[in-house]
Amino acid sequence: MQKNIVLAEGAGFCFGVKRAIDIAFDVAQKHKDGVFTLGPIIHNPQVVERLKDLGVYPVDEISQKTIKTLIIRAHGIPKEKFNELKQLDCEIIDATCPFVKKAQNLAEKLASEGYQVLIIGDREHPEVKGIFSYAGEKAIVINHADNELKESKKIPILNKKIGIIQQTTQPMSKVKEIMNKIINSLNEFEEIRIFNTLCNFTSRRLEATEKVAKEVDVMIVVGGKNSANTTQLANLCRKIGVKTYHIEDAQEIDKKWVNSAKKIGVTAGASTPQWIIDEVIDKIKKFTN
Amino acid sequence: MQKNIVLAEGAGFCFGVKRAIDIAFDVAQKHKDGVFTLGPIIHNPQVVERLKDLGVYPVDEISQKTIKTLIIRAHGIPKEKFNELKQLDCEIIDATCPFVKKAQNLAEKLASEGYQVLIIGDREHPEVKGIFSYAGEKAIVINHADNELKESKKIPILNKKIGIIQQTTQPMSKVKEIMNKIINSLNEFEEIRIFNTLCNFTSRRLEATEKVAKEVDVMIVVGGKNSANTTQLANLCRKIGVKTYHIEDAQEIDKKWVNSAKKIGVTAGASTPQWIIDEVIDKIKKFTN
Repeated sequence: MQKNIVLAEGAGFCFGVKRAIDIAFDVAQKHKDGVFTLGPIIHNPQVVERLKDLGVYPVDEISQKTIKTLIIRAHGIPKEKFNELKQLDCEIIDATCPFVKKAQNLAEKLASEGYQVLIIGDREHPEVKGIFSYAGEKAIVINHADNELKESKKIPILNKKIGIIQQTTQPMSKVKEIMNKIINSLNEFEEIRIFNTLCNFTSRRLEATEKVAKEVDVMIVVGGKNSANTTQLANLCRKIGVKTYHIEDAQEIDKKWVNSAKKIGVTAGASTPQWIIDEVIDKIKKFTN
Repeated sequence: MQKNIVLAEGAGFCFGVKRAIDIAFDVAQKHKDGVFTLGPIIHNPQVVERLKDLGVYPVDEISQKTIKTLIIRAHGIPKEKFNELKQLDCEIIDATCPFVKKAQNLAEKLASEGYQVLIIGDREHPEVKGIFSYAGEKAIVINHADNELKESKKIPILNKKIGIIQQTTQPMSKVKEIMNKIINSLNEFEEIRIFNTLCNFTSRRLEATEKVAKEVDVMIVVGGKNSANTTQLANLCRKIGVKTYHIEDAQEIDKKWVNSAKKIGVTAGASTPQWIIDEVIDKIKKFTN
């Protein structure tokens, strides 16, 4: 790599994504037909396409009669869905990320011990929908410190005992901000139990990206436009003040972006495969030679 | 009471103190000799003197051979001391405040479940010494957010799981401040478990005192000079900006303090008996008539 291109440490596939893909490729080799994933295995269209070539297809609903093997994607699925699948006459392979599984297990444990479970994250995200399904009837999801906690009336706190977990890819800064708001209501609680369910890989990637973004003129952030963790990386770079471009693949890069830059930073979300990162770096090299 | 004297709600004996005194008076009636309390039953010299008249004496060390009944004071005692007492040939009556007992029990439970216990409070206070003795080898006491938590090096955090409890009479504002500092280190922990062990009576007394202090010209705060919760009340009033006098009994009141005041507030610590509060109010009435 040329010295004016800096790749952030930990860019690209995280542990859970690597694991899910390894499982899917492994299953694809063993079974020649009837292999499906419930929803896309990870949030990356290129990976999903490669798996299709190997005979692994994403399905949204289990209406097909031909399913022999069903792989649960890295983000996990809701408990009810899982129970429903168990009734089917097919092999189920769970590729849920172990960090997500830990959050699901803690949600279930807290709910069973009488805690009201509070999840910090995006309620529309599949991972959170999954965790939420384990968190009991009184569970709530909080995504913004300001909007949802400023007026205490808005928090539907029903228990004196609350248990707090996080969507694994949430930024630590946001989690701390929300936690501080909750601590300010300490007098309303008998117990506040906080589990740190944040993924180490995500926080390390954010830290490494911040470091790179501070020393370059342009940041290229690679990953699905619908990928929450990639968007988070792009937002972090913009906050630092560096010119930032969020792209899905090398084709999108415009020569003008990198032409005059002395130093160019590259980072990538957890669902971005290495080959896409390599293509992006090659393209930048071409434009800057 | 004249309309220019306002007594704060909840001034004087709290639940735990009332209970301990009731126990002591009850024991004094049943047993005519050999009744002792380990340390003063509560932090109030007048009450201790009254009990002496009834044959209940405070002792610091158990060297006396004549002890028949020993009362454990409201603040509680360390676990080792308690175990030592059990070996003695005397009846032991536990007048430890139930709120303090709860904190002791939680400290023991947390330590046994592998948490490092963190106590927010004054390490020199007998209550904290007692709780600390139940909190396991790795327990630490934190008293000031700034001094002890500003540089993370200074916190001897040894576990990934910490359990936090408070000296029952700590002000909520200080607890929140320290908790927010700990939350800022959330990334260093797997779990932070906070039990609210603050005494409701204390926090209500502080709130009521604040309300009164804001509407009067002078505050008279009644209670032992060595009483932490009384000193806390006086400090709160001073912070609000009202002229404040911390006295132990009516004798100390100076006519000049109250003479020109239109409205005089009175509050009292948890160990101050009603008769002393009544004497103080009578004295103020005399001076202001």
